[in-house]
Amino acid sequence: MQVIILAAGQGKRMRSRLPKVLQPIAAKAMLRHVIDTARQLAPQKICVVYGHGGDQVRAAITDPDLAWAEQAQQLGTGHAVQQAMPAITGDGAALILYGDVPLTRVETLKDLVTTSAGERVALLTVNMDDPKGYGRIIRGADGSVQSIVEEKDATPEQRLVQEVNTGILCVPVAKLRDWLSRLSNNNAQGEYYLTDIIAMAVADGVEVAARQPAAVWETLGVNNKLQLAELERIHQRNIANALMENGVTLIDPARIDVRGELVCEPDVEIDVGCVFEGKVTLGEGVKIGAHCVLKNVTVAAGTELSPFCHIENADIGIDCTIGPFARIRPGTKLGEDVHIGNFVEVKNSQIAAGSKAGHLAYLGDADVGSKVNIGAGVITANYDGANKFRTTIEDEAFIGSDTQLIAPVTVGKGATIAAGTTLTANAPAGELTLSRTRQNTVPGWKRPVKKQG
Amino acid sequence: MQVIILAAGQGKRMRSRLPKVLQPIAAKAMLRHVIDTARQLAPQKICVVYGHGGDQVRAAITDPDLAWAEQAQQLGTGHAVQQAMPAITGDGAALILYGDVPLTRVETLKDLVTTSAGERVALLTVNMDDPKGYGRIIRGADGSVQSIVEEKDATPEQRLVQEVNTGILCVPVAKLRDWLSRLSNNNAQGEYYLTDIIAMAVADGVEVAARQPAAVWETLGVNNKLQLAELERIHQRNIANALMENGVTLIDPARIDVRGELVCEPDVEIDVGCVFEGKVTLGEGVKIGAHCVLKNVTVAAGTELSPFCHIENADIGIDCTIGPFARIRPGTKLGEDVHIGNFVEVKNSQIAAGSKAGHLAYLGDADVGSKVNIGAGVITANYDGANKFRTTIEDEAFIGSDTQLIAPVTVGKGATIAAGTTLTANAPAGELTLSRTRQNTVPGWKRPVKKQG
Amino acid sequence: MQVIILAAGQGKRMRSRLPKVLQPIAAKAMLRHVIDTARQLAPQKICVVYGHGGDQVRAAITDPDLAWAEQAQQLGTGHAVQQAMPAITGDGAALILYGDVPLTRVETLKDLVTTSAGERVALLTVNMDDPKGYGRIIRGADGSVQSIVEEKDATPEQRLVQEVNTGILCVPVAKLRDWLSRLSNNNAQGEYYLTDIIAMAVADGVEVAARQPAAVWETLGVNNKLQLAELERIHQRNIANALMENGVTLIDPARIDVRGELVCEPDVEIDVGCVFEGKVTLGEGVKIGAHCVLKNVTVAAGTELSPFCHIENADIGIDCTIGPFARIRPGTKLGEDVHIGNFVEVKNSQIAAGSKAGHLAYLGDADVGSKVNIGAGVITANYDGANKFRTTIEDEAFIGSDTQLIAPVTVGKGATIAAGTTLTANAPAGELTLSRTRQNTVPGWKRPVKKQG
Repeated sequence: MQVIILAAGQGKRMRSRLPKVLQPIAAKAMLRHVIDTARQLAPQKICVVYGHGGDQVRAAITDPDLAWAEQAQQLGTGHAVQQAMPAITGDGAALILYGDVPLTRVETLKDLVTTSAGERVALLTVNMDDPKGYGRIIRGADGSVQSIVEEKDATPEQRLVQEVNTGILCVPVAKLRDWLSRLSNNNAQGEYYLTDIIAMAVADGVEVAARQPAAVWETLGVNNKLQLAELERIHQRNIANALMENGVTLIDPARIDVRGELVCEPDVEIDVGCVFEGKVTLGEGVKIGAHCVLKNVTVAAGTELSPFCHIENADIGIDCTIGPFARIRPGTKLGEDVHIGNFVEVKNSQIAAGSKAGHLAYLGDADVGSKVNIGAGVITANYDGANKFRTTIEDEAFIGSDTQLIAPVTVGKGATIAAGTTLTANAPAGELTLSRTRQNTVPGWKRPVKKQG
Repeated sequence: MQVIILAAGQGKRMRSRLPKVLQPIAAKAMLRHVIDTARQLAPQKICVVYGHGGDQVRAAITDPDLAWAEQAQQLGTGHAVQQAMPAITGDGAALILYGDVPLTRVETLKDLVTTSAGERVALLTVNMDDPKGYGRIIRGADGSVQSIVEEKDATPEQRLVQEVNTGILCVPVAKLRDWLSRLSNNNAQGEYYLTDIIAMAVADGVEVAARQPAAVWETLGVNNKLQLAELERIHQRNIANALMENGVTLIDPARIDVRGELVCEPDVEIDVGCVFEGKVTLGEGVKIGAHCVLKNVTVAAGTELSPFCHIENADIGIDCTIGPFARIRPGTKLGEDVHIGNFVEVKNSQIAAGSKAGHLAYLGDADVGSKVNIGAGVITANYDGANKFRTTIEDEAFIGSDTQLIAPVTVGKGATIAAGTTLTANAPAGELTLSRTRQNTVPGWKRPVKKQG
Repeated sequence: MQVIILAAGQGKRMRSRLPKVLQPIAAKAMLRHVIDTARQLAPQKICVVYGHGGDQVRAAITDPDLAWAEQAQQLGTGHAVQQAMPAITGDGAALILYGDVPLTRVETLKDLVTTSAGERVALLTVNMDDPKGYGRIIRGADGSVQSIVEEKDATPEQRLVQEVNTGILCVPVAKLRDWLSRLSNNNAQGEYYLTDIIAMAVADGVEVAARQPAAVWETLGVNNKLQLAELERIHQRNIANALMENGVTLIDPARIDVRGELVCEPDVEIDVGCVFEGKVTLGEGVKIGAHCVLKNVTVAAGTELSPFCHIENADIGIDCTIGPFARIRPGTKLGEDVHIGNFVEVKNSQIAAGSKAGHLAYLGDADVGSKVNIGAGVITANYDGANKFRTTIEDEAFIGSDTQLIAPVTVGKGATIAAGTTLTANAPAGELTLSRTRQNTVPGWKRPVKKQG
């Protein structure tokens, strides 16, 4: 079995410089969705027919095993498939998909391929409450598919038909080659229509079997940003439903966005307004507070994120408490029972078990031991304007408020750094280190007064 | 009148270690919702039939006056009610409720109890567009209820009936005791069905009166996380509607979550994405900006919260301006006209009228007078690694930027603390206090250069 | 053509101290919506009939060219229009609108005015699935409008009519004057009904032409907060659709709020939960992350906002990266390629190309050159308790972490300020300036221990 994906359309109504098939659903190009689904059928070959924005499309989709066929002029769907035929070899079935119909389920396609069996034309049709604008499926007295009639060519009676063509079909390759060669563009648009092969199949005595998907949304295409948003929401709702079926508690299935893969162990609870990007794994009993954004993150069991956490490319240990208003940046690894509090930024740092940075701090390029207490306002000065350096804070150290740790620098085990210290050299273990100026009161000083004007 | 609540089901499809009846709607266990509603009927007794996860259920629901009956084996709803009967005494009516049907309105239950009057069987039924899967209400030619027929036992004609059994009913206790003793498990499932008592009532000449709730959602049960989310949203929409009827302006009723009690004075406005937990009271004219999270908070009249505020167990005075990005933690009390600005954390502190902490500050365990100005980056160093201490800042003090106040310490009335001070001892009233090192410029210093590699 | 807007109603069910017609949709008073729409018709005059809360209404709507007519007593819609008539002069048509029907499209009103042509009564009607409560449009055998019958006066047959009166109509002025003078309050409510003029028109042989709007929501009025929220969501969805038609990618059209004017260049992408107020302009390719709030902001091409940005009255240059958790306040102007990171506040400052303030900083009243690096925790101490002063940081300066810049102060070009410095005087260009105390370790110091009790 081989797959042809039509991806040459301009998508002018998208009003975008990005080719239509690269427009994203859940942060993944629609064409990528179609290819990924097609791959699950293990086809011999996938051929993508490209055209408008072809350079962008080929730059974005770099799978080495794809075949590419250019459709330089847009002369209809039949013409598009013709361009692919040199890449299609041998017998068997060809499954024709569309780069702007991103959500077809693989089960639906498997059913088409099985139905075709390389002998029949298997046509995906769908019943629409309002079939206006779609090609109607005309069946004979025996119920067999006879032809597809376009809206403008349909009789009033035919227009009442609610079963419509989705464009997706699976055709015996040899027959397809023959029928494509006989297509004519002798019609109002002057285009070669792929749908004309249905009548040819009937004329040639090849059975046309119509199959239907489980849901209409599987067959919806995207021509503008409203339709893009509509499919985005359908896709997100499907993801939400799958999560809930798997036992995840979603406070509002209409207010979660998953753009990648979200893997959840039992008893995960996700509050409203959260966004998950890339690969996110949430351990057992993890609670994600409202309005959190996570990208490529592992959160181990028992950890709770308060609202407004922003975490990216990080590994959060078990039983941590994070946020609210915590920012954790790439390269961060937190051990067990770590607390990162409000207005704290952690970047490219390791923090071992039981350590806490609860308030307004910046830990960048730091190796922090266990049971360390990072005071409010502590900053690792990891950048000298040219190079970045690491800060090491050993176990059980206490870093007083508003301390600056001028990297590279090490705070020894159990050391205490007094509040307000600028630490420029290593602090010995177990001792109190500080840089402090004696406090004094200025006699007779007067407060400034408000200037006029 | 007595209440029996069936709460023994496993809820395997919830895919959770938490027993089904403890799964929350609006952060409150479903069983808790049912008990709270039942209490409004002032019953003589409430008996909860527990089973799966019984230890967790009994640990979570600790009302001293509840009766508990264990259903060790799950042998059907009739069997479950049988377990409760030893706890049910005397005459009158028994109202049978379900721990996984959390949203029934008390008015609906009152109507059932009144209808039963300890003489009739009052059965709560509901008409469903799609009754599939539910027991159908079979009525005689005179319209009287004759029996409940389960889906699988129903004739094609009976399956067309849209009136279905909700399971909720109110039964004369003496009759119930008799009928339960006569239940048989001679059926496909080998279970004792409570619904069989309807036919017994008819046979015994006891009137069966069907009553209907105002809305179908009152009767919906929860068997999986999708249904849990569906009821969560219905419940939240009901709360939103009640708030709006009371005069609250909600920018989007689909984007507010109330998990507890939200009391609003006139002319409160709540923007999108807000979450309210516990008891929250909002005074007249209070405005809550987008994406705020409040838990157990009182906000007095005229106060405005900018977006992204996170406030917990705090008492906010009148005409305050809070946020955006403000974090106020438990034990905080703000006076009139206080301003807490962005990236400011306040914990367990009192701040009197007219004081301001506008930028990047941490006020923990502080007593702040009136008309105090807290500069950017000010930190109360309230923790020495072992103990916490309070900071006192008297009226009209001015705390310069980036000051650390090493508690215990007092800043006197009208004192000024210069920027960058580490305040280790009390600062006298009215004077300027500082700890500062003279600024100097290093001659000939060269900037570091980027290292190779 | 002249416009009469009825805006005297109390709106008791709003349960608010704000008069009903001042209740906002998209942060703009409903009456303001109606006036703004009416102005697009270029009428000779707009007369607003006010009553309840008249002082508030007149204080809120200060257009100098409006005519105002007081309706001191609420004696019906006919009585309300009578109050306006002294302000209405000459011939032509009078269009009657309602201050609590805010979303009528101007195209619909133009159609009414054209239809009336100062000769006919043009009546806006709408078909409702559930017409209950509305005045029904009674048509003659020839299809011509004969009268409007109120619900309570309608026969059972008339109640089946689904075409209802919206109240909006356009009437020849001279006829209107005549008919109003003949209105009677001899009815159940003792009120003068404007709808009675329809029957008078028919009796006088004046044609009554019914016109229909494109959508029912154009005719919906607001009587309570639920209806206010319903229209808010309809209005927001209309705005979202218009943005998408214009090529904007909205991740969720149900989760964007626009309260003012949002102008987008091509290929703008807006994530979930964003709020736009006032006039916001987004350049080509701008990406707005989840949960951002922007008010009166210009964002130039290529700039990306991470989630949780709060920006107000600012001008953001091209290719900037902002946030997450960035707060930019009024009077700020960022050049090209500026980075403002997490927990950074910028107020009334200019920052030139390529400069960065990545972490926990406050820049207030600052003029920052190009390629400046602002370290974590840097604070401009711009306020001495009485006056505000500016800070100047010249090109390529490097401001070390936790520096306080005591304004007025200037950091020269290429100067370096060491971490932890309190800068009280100008720092010379190209040199290292610092205020630092030598670090020392206290021998024999013992950590405090936890106090008992």
